[in-house]
Amino acid sequence: MKNEKITLRSEDFAKWYTDVVKAARLADYSTVKGCIIFEPNGYAIWEKMQSVLDSMFKECGHQNVYLPVLIPESLLAKEGELINGFAPECAWVTTGGQDTLEERLAFRPTSETLFSDYYSKTVKTYRDLPKLYNQWCNIIRWEKETRPFLRSREFLWQEGHTVHSTSEEAELEANRMLDVYKTFFEKYLAIPVITGKKTEKEKFAGAEYTLTVEALMQNGVSLQSATSHYFGQKFSKAYDIKFVNKNNEYEYCYQTSWGSTTRMIGALIMVHSDDRGLVLPPKIAPKQVCIIPIKNDEKLLDISKKINESLLSKGISSYIDYSDKSAGFKFAEAEVNGIPLRIEIGPRDLEKNEVTVVRRDTLEKEIVKLNDIINVVVQSLDKMQDNLYNRALKNLQDRTYDVTTLKEIEDIMNNKPGFVNAYWCGDSECEVKMKEIKGTKSRCIIESKDYEDEKCVVCGKDAKHKVVWGIQY
Amino acid sequence: MKNEKITLRSEDFAKWYTDVVKAARLADYSTVKGCIIFEPNGYAIWEKMQSVLDSMFKECGHQNVYLPVLIPESLLAKEGELINGFAPECAWVTTGGQDTLEERLAFRPTSETLFSDYYSKTVKTYRDLPKLYNQWCNIIRWEKETRPFLRSREFLWQEGHTVHSTSEEAELEANRMLDVYKTFFEKYLAIPVITGKKTEKEKFAGAEYTLTVEALMQNGVSLQSATSHYFGQKFSKAYDIKFVNKNNEYEYCYQTSWGSTTRMIGALIMVHSDDRGLVLPPKIAPKQVCIIPIKNDEKLLDISKKINESLLSKGISSYIDYSDKSAGFKFAEAEVNGIPLRIEIGPRDLEKNEVTVVRRDTLEKEIVKLNDIINVVVQSLDKMQDNLYNRALKNLQDRTYDVTTLKEIEDIMNNKPGFVNAYWCGDSECEVKMKEIKGTKSRCIIESKDYEDEKCVVCGKDAKHKVVWGIQY
Repeated sequence: MKNEKITLRSEDFAKWYTDVVKAARLADYSTVKGCIIFEPNGYAIWEKMQSVLDSMFKECGHQNVYLPVLIPESLLAKEGELINGFAPECAWVTTGGQDTLEERLAFRPTSETLFSDYYSKTVKTYRDLPKLYNQWCNIIRWEKETRPFLRSREFLWQEGHTVHSTSEEAELEANRMLDVYKTFFEKYLAIPVITGKKTEKEKFAGAEYTLTVEALMQNGVSLQSATSHYFGQKFSKAYDIKFVNKNNEYEYCYQTSWGSTTRMIGALIMVHSDDRGLVLPPKIAPKQVCIIPIKNDEKLLDISKKINESLLSKGISSYIDYSDKSAGFKFAEAEVNGIPLRIEIGPRDLEKNEVTVVRRDTLEKEIVKLNDIINVVVQSLDKMQDNLYNRALKNLQDRTYDVTTLKEIEDIMNNKPGFVNAYWCGDSECEVKMKEIKGTKSRCIIESKDYEDEKCVVCGKDAKHKVVWGIQY
Repeated sequence: MKNEKITLRSEDFAKWYTDVVKAARLADYSTVKGCIIFEPNGYAIWEKMQSVLDSMFKECGHQNVYLPVLIPESLLAKEGELINGFAPECAWVTTGGQDTLEERLAFRPTSETLFSDYYSKTVKTYRDLPKLYNQWCNIIRWEKETRPFLRSREFLWQEGHTVHSTSEEAELEANRMLDVYKTFFEKYLAIPVITGKKTEKEKFAGAEYTLTVEALMQNGVSLQSATSHYFGQKFSKAYDIKFVNKNNEYEYCYQTSWGSTTRMIGALIMVHSDDRGLVLPPKIAPKQVCIIPIKNDEKLLDISKKINESLLSKGISSYIDYSDKSAGFKFAEAEVNGIPLRIEIGPRDLEKNEVTVVRRDTLEKEIVKLNDIINVVVQSLDKMQDNLYNRALKNLQDRTYDVTTLKEIEDIMNNKPGFVNAYWCGDSECEVKMKEIKGTKSRCIIESKDYEDEKCVVCGKDAKHKVVWGIQY
């Protein structure tokens, strides 16, 4: 049954996306321009993401902190590249209470500046290092065009900010956190990703280099999904973060930062969902199983409760839909909301000691004996997690191309876009030229060396890098 | 051993407080005026508070959401009392990116207005009700004088916002959440509290009435620690939140809101801590046990690890201090940081199969046989939780007074301040008069009726309320 509130993907992918956001009640538009309301279903996904990522960070030894949301303009401006990159999209507080402020304050667009200021006061010797801090908070960037989760003026994120006594250790940290993100995407979000270095043009303002996690949506559009930056001594020099090293000399620290945002909810939708609504990988679904007694009957309710308690005791987040709506309505609601499994319990099934289990990804129905239900649920959730990953991987593989000419790229981006592997000379003019093909940009550099025969796909000069290109959100 | 970085409470309580905040590395001042940095030790307490409260809210059926941080001035102004109450302390965003905004946006000082706007669009019939939403977020109020945790320009909190189809249900909700806070304070924070209704003068701007949780600090100063508001139809009329009731008629909804903040960390410090530093109730301490091998010895480390693993497997958050500092330094650090129990493991103890367990509240040392350690830890944590509560309760009882004259109140507030029970006529002029006694204010009304013989402690007219008065933070 097609959901009438949801445009088909084949008709209009962008409209389909916002229809799913609305139909699954993930988010609503707000009266505040460019900002969304995270509704319970959407916020619960973010809570689940936070809980998993936070544990992963803490296992690496990171600690959470919270720094102020407002940043004085002079502090923001100490590192020149960062202020140039972010000033055009800052929101500025100019009045506090009844008073016009002497210096305007930026709503944090990112917090390297404040962390650096804090580290400059608290880091004294190599014994104070490393500091491995992270914060969960809200961010504002004054975007012109916005789309729920993908790009909005306010969004939620985590930003890790670490400071180290050697460049080696800091580079290892930047790479380690890239791996943490990759693991999170593949294992929990069931989204295969590619990783690599951003080009100079695409890197974070102020970074020595930026590592990125890139995912491919169903429609072949790329999404920059998380980033990890190595700063070297750029910020430590601008903010004077010095420490006494083991040789008893002053040295500037080495820093990293890394972040992931509520945009990941958008990735989940665009990778896994279908024309009936949301599809969520079981490991990130806030509710994994919905039990629906198909009528209001004491016996059915009793069995529902028993199954529910057994599942909960196994650590599976299940619930019973007790509401006084029709069974058909409840089925449709569980479907559009992306509950991975639904268990339908009817009187005739019950006579045979059976229930029906329906998987959200394949929509397959399975008749299951009551004494087998827990095993089937556990296995089905695992199978569904694997199936979603494999389906997404197949799409990524089907849409990954090796090319040597611009003409090929043009054909691909016009017909069946995806990740295009092509060599590049390293010249930013060639990147600019590439953008003429439907906005194609470098996603990341996956290899750099002196190639013998490879030529730049744009200008034909000697290649220095193998780059993945794509159309982006 | 006195901590040299901490002023004695008897010398200067206010200085002692900020010394403890600094010495236990809970928070640091920031370059951003009036805003603090939550350092790892401080933020971990907030995370623990969040985790406990969030479970309590969810058990009541509340769902988390997230609404925008910026509120257009016109939206904020729809309910007259609220804007009058909050406009003087709002921070205003007037520039977004390169553009001066047509309408300035307030950084949320509280979110009744946005929730009401959202409810006005989403609530249609009694079937949509109640909506029981909560959000965890940052708040700005442009305070002139600030103190870490107690009052700062930016703070963190949760704000529940609910909407109901009857006034009875909404009033029950406001009272239920007051009880949730009371339970949280008493059971987890080990802080006895009094609860009651705020006077008209002290209630939340825009509320029909405000219920409050009031705690008493060691020095007899009161702290408003959490509040729960009943709005009746005030906001639903201002924001046009109508629903079709069971009689098929339009009716305005009934609302509540309730909040608790990072100020609770300040309450923890001022109720339990001592001249040596932080003291935390075990149930809210992020780390409950610190295991300290008194020298770097393989055998000591092995035993430490075994004990640590046994404790972790019992759900007790313990850790080993592996650092290369001296044992004495580690003891002092565990002490100032308020770790409830510390286990000292030395070679001579070990020969006797013994370790030393030190309780942070009483500083008592206990020699414990190795095979008894888990039981002793579990019991000691329970005893410590009880002891802290009872100690705080004794202070509250010692400082609770029944009086009938202003002279008595003056003596009390000058010598040994606390909660003063005294009758009141209900006239706000008498409240203003009371403030002349060292700023004494009504904490809450604990009883209202037609008294036969009782007179207002200020003006001598017939009393209408029994009120608790106190000096406040």
